[in-house]
Amino acid sequence: MQSDAVVLLGGGNIDILPTCFRPGAAVIHCEPTLESGIAELIVITVKIMVCCKIMEKMYSIQHFSVLKLNLYISDIEISRAQIPKPVNQLAEEVGLLPEELEAYGRSKAKVCLSLLDRLHTQPDGKYVLVAGITPTPLGEGKSTVTIGLVQALSAHLSLNSFACLRQPSQGPTFGVKGQHLILFILSERLFNLHLTGDIHAITAANNLVAAAIDARMLHEATQSDKALFNRLVPSVNGVRKFSPIQFSRLQRLGIDKTNPASLTPEEVTSFVRLDLDPSKITWQRVVDTNDRFLRKITVGQANTEKGQIRETGFDIAVASEIMAILALADSLEDMKNRLARMVVGTSRSGQPVTTEDLGVSGALTVLMKDAIKPTLMQTLEGTPVFVHAGPFANIAHGNSSVLADKLALKLVGRDGFVVTEAGFGADIGMEKFFNIKCRASGLRPNVVVLVATIRALKMHGGGPNVSAGAPLPKEYIDENLSLVAAGCHSNLKKQIQIAHLFGIPVVVALNVFKTDTQAEIDLVCEIAKGCGASDAVPCNHWAQGGRGSIKLAQAVNEAASRPSNFQFLYNIEMPIADKIRTIAQKVYGADDIELSPAAKDKIDYYNQQGYGLLPICMAKTHLSLSHMPDKKGAPTGFVLPIRDVRASIGAGFIYPLVGTMSTMPGLPTRPCFYDIDLDPVTGEITGLF
Amino acid sequence: MQSDAVVLLGGGNIDILPTCFRPGAAVIHCEPTLESGIAELIVITVKIMVCCKIMEKMYSIQHFSVLKLNLYISDIEISRAQIPKPVNQLAEEVGLLPEELEAYGRSKAKVCLSLLDRLHTQPDGKYVLVAGITPTPLGEGKSTVTIGLVQALSAHLSLNSFACLRQPSQGPTFGVKGQHLILFILSERLFNLHLTGDIHAITAANNLVAAAIDARMLHEATQSDKALFNRLVPSVNGVRKFSPIQFSRLQRLGIDKTNPASLTPEEVTSFVRLDLDPSKITWQRVVDTNDRFLRKITVGQANTEKGQIRETGFDIAVASEIMAILALADSLEDMKNRLARMVVGTSRSGQPVTTEDLGVSGALTVLMKDAIKPTLMQTLEGTPVFVHAGPFANIAHGNSSVLADKLALKLVGRDGFVVTEAGFGADIGMEKFFNIKCRASGLRPNVVVLVATIRALKMHGGGPNVSAGAPLPKEYIDENLSLVAAGCHSNLKKQIQIAHLFGIPVVVALNVFKTDTQAEIDLVCEIAKGCGASDAVPCNHWAQGGRGSIKLAQAVNEAASRPSNFQFLYNIEMPIADKIRTIAQKVYGADDIELSPAAKDKIDYYNQQGYGLLPICMAKTHLSLSHMPDKKGAPTGFVLPIRDVRASIGAGFIYPLVGTMSTMPGLPTRPCFYDIDLDPVTGEITGLF
Repeated sequence: MQSDAVVLLGGGNIDILPTCFRPGAAVIHCEPTLESGIAELIVITVKIMVCCKIMEKMYSIQHFSVLKLNLYISDIEISRAQIPKPVNQLAEEVGLLPEELEAYGRSKAKVCLSLLDRLHTQPDGKYVLVAGITPTPLGEGKSTVTIGLVQALSAHLSLNSFACLRQPSQGPTFGVKGQHLILFILSERLFNLHLTGDIHAITAANNLVAAAIDARMLHEATQSDKALFNRLVPSVNGVRKFSPIQFSRLQRLGIDKTNPASLTPEEVTSFVRLDLDPSKITWQRVVDTNDRFLRKITVGQANTEKGQIRETGFDIAVASEIMAILALADSLEDMKNRLARMVVGTSRSGQPVTTEDLGVSGALTVLMKDAIKPTLMQTLEGTPVFVHAGPFANIAHGNSSVLADKLALKLVGRDGFVVTEAGFGADIGMEKFFNIKCRASGLRPNVVVLVATIRALKMHGGGPNVSAGAPLPKEYIDENLSLVAAGCHSNLKKQIQIAHLFGIPVVVALNVFKTDTQAEIDLVCEIAKGCGASDAVPCNHWAQGGRGSIKLAQAVNEAASRPSNFQFLYNIEMPIADKIRTIAQKVYGADDIELSPAAKDKIDYYNQQGYGLLPICMAKTHLSLSHMPDKKGAPTGFVLPIRDVRASIGAGFIYPLVGTMSTMPGLPTRPCFYDIDLDPVTGEITGLF
Repeated sequence: MQSDAVVLLGGGNIDILPTCFRPGAAVIHCEPTLESGIAELIVITVKIMVCCKIMEKMYSIQHFSVLKLNLYISDIEISRAQIPKPVNQLAEEVGLLPEELEAYGRSKAKVCLSLLDRLHTQPDGKYVLVAGITPTPLGEGKSTVTIGLVQALSAHLSLNSFACLRQPSQGPTFGVKGQHLILFILSERLFNLHLTGDIHAITAANNLVAAAIDARMLHEATQSDKALFNRLVPSVNGVRKFSPIQFSRLQRLGIDKTNPASLTPEEVTSFVRLDLDPSKITWQRVVDTNDRFLRKITVGQANTEKGQIRETGFDIAVASEIMAILALADSLEDMKNRLARMVVGTSRSGQPVTTEDLGVSGALTVLMKDAIKPTLMQTLEGTPVFVHAGPFANIAHGNSSVLADKLALKLVGRDGFVVTEAGFGADIGMEKFFNIKCRASGLRPNVVVLVATIRALKMHGGGPNVSAGAPLPKEYIDENLSLVAAGCHSNLKKQIQIAHLFGIPVVVALNVFKTDTQAEIDLVCEIAKGCGASDAVPCNHWAQGGRGSIKLAQAVNEAASRPSNFQFLYNIEMPIADKIRTIAQKVYGADDIELSPAAKDKIDYYNQQGYGLLPICMAKTHLSLSHMPDKKGAPTGFVLPIRDVRASIGAGFIYPLVGTMSTMPGLPTRPCFYDIDLDPVTGEITGLF
C-alpha cells in the first residue's frame, strides 16, 4: 500500500522518501513542533484533492515534458539560454522512483539497474539504430541526427523517446574534434568534462591490471617458489588460507585441494608462477589524453625494477577492453565474470593468463560498480538521454551500452522509441551492432536510420578528396547532381543492402547542410527509395532542433510499425575464418580474404583455447567499405588482407586486424585547448563548443 | 524577502527551490490541475502555523544530529549496520541551502564555494590541528583521532564540529595500506573508491600538460617558425587573431602588439618557440596506481614521434603539483592563476616555461572546476566531514584543503570546532601547516592536538626496530615504563616545543592500544603535562567511537578558550637558504645545513627568477626528526644535507630535497586486491577494510 500524501516532520527530504510513498505524492515539510493533529488534517485535505489525479498517473507512462528552443540566437547562446529540467524532475517524468536515482550534481544522475527487475513485465519500446553511410573524415552527423530524432519524436510527435549515446573521450575534446554533440545534450553552464567518472573508472581499473602484471613478473623473477607461496598464501595467526580468487585459479589448474599445506611442490610451482612471457603481454596501459609520446615506451628503467625493462605502450582509455565490457555487460554479475575472463598475455608454455590469475578481478569489479549504471541527461529540448560507455569502433564494437538500451526500452513503454547509435559507417558500426551487441543483449531492432550527407555522397560519386582542416573543393559547395547520383547508386545503395541482409527496414536520413540544393535533396530521397529504403527524408535538426526532424520521426514511426525479420549474418558456430570471410564478402563486397601466417597461427591458437565460438569484431578503416581508405563508393574486386587476429576474451570477441589501427591519437600544433577557458566570476566556460 | 512556505505545482523539486524560499520552508508538492485557490489556502494555513518556528531556526546554527553506534559488534559489522543520514539531511543540519549542494549519489555531495560569500559576516569557529609525534612505519592514528574528536565534540559535548580530511589515494588502497579511516567515515555499503572524482580530475589535468609538452617539442622540432605561427595563430575566414591565452604569453615576452601581422620575425620566433630543453623538463605524468614500472621510462619510441625519445617517469597522482594547488587555493580565481603559473621546465636559454605558455591553463581550470568544491560526508556517528585534496607530505605540504577548512569554520559557528589534520609528524606536517597553509589561507589555529602512542614512544625511548609486516617485539607488548619515559622526554617533548614555537597550545592525545597498561598511560600524561602540554589525555575512540574521546574533546575545548599567540617561524623575506636553516635548526634540531653545489645553483636560479619570496616545503623522511630514518627520539649534533632544491611555482613553494623521495609506490607480492570483491547480488564489498 502506497500513500499519496505525506507530512515530513523535521526536515526529512523528498529524495529519501521510502517506497511506500508514490512518486508524485503530495509532500509537506513541517517543523517538528507543528501539532500533529493539524498536520493530519492537511494530509487528509491534500489527499482528497490530489488522489484521483495521482491514481491516473501511477504506473502509466506519462508524456515527457518539453523545453522550448529559441532558434533566433547562435548555437552557443541557445545552449547557454536553456535551463535544463532538474534531474529529479526528469527522472520522475520518465518513471523512475527516487530510490532508483543517484544524482551527480543537479543535471545528471546514475540510474540503478534494479529498475530492470521492477519493470521486467513491462513490454519494450521500439528500438531504432542510427548508422551512416561511409563518412568523410569530417563525420556526417549521426549523433546529431540521433538527438534531432528523439527531440522530434518526444517534443513534436508526443511519442516518448530516449536517446542512448556514447560518452565522449576527453582526448579529442582537447585535441581536434569539436564536441558539438554536447551542445545538443546539455546547457554549457552545467557541463562537466568528467561526466560521472565512468571513463576515469575504466582508466583506474585498466591500469591496476597493468601494474599487477609488471609487479608480478618482477616478484616471480626475484623470488623462489617457496617465498612466493609464503607471501601469496600468508600465515595469519598461524593459519594459511587460500582466498576465494585463489581457489578459482586452483580450479583452472585442476588442483582440487583446499588446504595450502597439502599442495605438492609441482602444484605449488604451477600455482605461484603465472610465468608470463614478457614478449606476449597484450595488455596496454591507458590514459584519456591524446598523448602520442606514450604510443611506444620502455618501462622498468629505474634501479628498483632490477633490469626488468620491456617495451609496451598506452592506448587512449576508450580503447580499453574494460570499456568494451562495460558496453556489452547486461548485469553486474555478467560484468564481473567478463572482467575475470580478460586475458592479459600468455605464459611461456602458451597458456592464457587472466585477470583472475593475477588476483585482481574482484578489485576491478569494485572499481567499476558505479560505472555500470547509465547516466541520465537530457537534450536541449528536455528529452531524456542515457550517456553510457563508448568503446572504440575499430578494435572494439563502437556502440553505446546494452544496459542503457535495455533500461530505456522499459522506460519509454510499448509505444515509445529508443534511438541508439553505432560508430563509423553501417559496414562497421551497424554490422557489429547486429552481430555482437544484439547477440549479447538479445534485443532486436525495429528500424535502421541510415545517415547520409550530400557531401559524403558527392565524395562517393567521384568528388575530390575531403580532408580535415583544408577548405572544401567547389564540387561540395555548388550543386552537382551527377556526383550525388553516383554516390547514391554506389555507397548509399550498398549500405541499404547491408541493413537488409539483417532483415531490418531502413529509413535514410539526409542531414542537410546549408549549401545543399533542393534538387540535390530531392534526388537523394528519390534514389534512396528506389534502392529499397522504406523512406528517405531530409533533416534540418541543426537549424531547427527537433522541429527539423519531424519528417524523419514520422518515417521512423511508420517503418517501426512494419514487420521486421531480424537475422544474424553468420552462425556463431562457423569456423573463425569463415565468419571473417562472410563479413568481408557480404558486407564489404570483397572477393575473398587473405590470412597472413600470423593470423592463421592465431586462429589455430584461439580454436585450441576454445575461443572459436566468439563473434568477430573487424578492425578496419571506416573511410571505405574496403580496407583501402581512398577507395570510395562501393569497391569490388578486392581481397581483404587479414594482417593479424587478436582477441578480447572478456568483452567476448575476436578482432582481425585489417591494416594498422592507431589506438592513441596525438595533439596538433594548436590543440583546441588554446581556446578553452573558464571565467572564475561567472563560471562561464568558453571554447568547448 | 524569503517565503516560509511554498506550493510546487506539477512535480517541481525541492532541490532547486530558488533562494527566495528559506531552508526549512514548508513545501507542498501538488498536481498541476489542483485548483490554485485551494493551494493558496493551504499555503496560508501552513505559513501561519510554522512561521514562528521557522523564524527561530533561520540563520542560527542548529545542533548537528547524531547516529548511535552499536559497539558490541565487529568493526565491519558496525560499518555495515550504520545507515548514514541522507546527504541532503546532513547538509540541511549543517546549514547549507539546497542550491549550495551538488549531490553525488545519496551519501556525498560537493559544496559550492558561494557559501563563503553568503556567510562572510559569520564569525569563524575554533580551528584545531591534529598532528603527531614522529611515527613508526605503522602510523599512529592521527586520522582516527581526528574522527574520534569530532564525534566526541558533536555527539557527546553538543558542540558543532567538522572534520577536514584528505582524500585517500587509490594506489595504496590496492597495495599495502589498510583504509581503516574509511570505516570511520562511511558505511561500507555506500563506499565508492572514486569519491567525487577529484583525484581523477587532477590526473587528467596533469597528463594533459604532459601531452602538451611532448607534442609541442615535436612540433617545434619539425616545423619552421612560419609554419608554427600559421598554425598557432590560424587565419579563420581571412582573419588572424591571438587568443587571450596567447596575449598572456606576448605580455610575458614584452611584446605589446595585438595584430599578429605586425610581429617582427624575431618576435614571431620568440612567440612560437618555447624551446624547451628536454633535459630540463620537470613535469612528470601521473597515475593513481602503485605502478613501480613507470618510475623511470622512455617515451616517444614509436616511428610517428620521429626519434624524439626522452627519459621521464610517472608519479602517483597525489604527488602532482595540481593536487598541492587544489589544497592551497582559496578561490576559483586563485586556483586558475596558480594553474597558469606552474613551471613545467626550462628553455634552452634558461627561461622558465609555464602551462600558460603551453596554452593549456584555461583547459586545466575547466578540468578542475568541480574538484575545487569540497566533498561533504559524515562519520559513522553522523558528524559532518569534508574530504578534500590530499597532497603528498614530502614533496608537497601534506594538508587537506584551505577551502574545506574555511567553509567548515563558517558552518560550525563561533562556538563550533573544525578539526583538520596534517600528514606525518609535527616536524613536517604541522610545520608546513603553519608556514605554508596558514600563510596561504590567513587562518590562525587555536589548538594543536599532538597524537602519540605508547608504541611510538617506546621506539623513541630506545625500543627495537618496528617494521610493517613483522611481528612486534615484546617490548611493545609488555609494560615498559622506562622506554615510555625516555620516549616522552625525547620526541614527545621536542614536538610539543615545536608547536610552542608557533605560539599555539598543545593537547597531547594518547591513542590507546589494548596492550597499553594504565601505568604507562598515566606516565605519558604526566610527563606530557610536565613538558608544557596544556593537557594530555588517553583516547579510546577505536573501541568506543566518539564516547572514547570525550576527555580529549573537553581538553581541546578548554585549551581553545585560552589566548593563543600565533607567529610564523620565519619571515618570508629571508633568503631561501636562511629559511631552510631556520627550519633545520629550530624544528629538526640540526646544527646547520649543508647545501650541495646543485642546491646552491638552484637557489641562485630561483632568486634570479623572482621565486625567493616563497615559503619552504621540506622533503624529508617522516621517520626521524633528522634526515636519518633510524635516528629516533630527538637527535642532535647533525648537519642537514640539502641534496637539491626544486620549486612548485603554481602551488607556491620551494622544496629542498633531503635524501631521495619515492613518488611512486609499488605493489607487494600479494597486494590487498587479492581480498577485494563485490557480491553482484547483494552489492556487498569485501576486503576493503
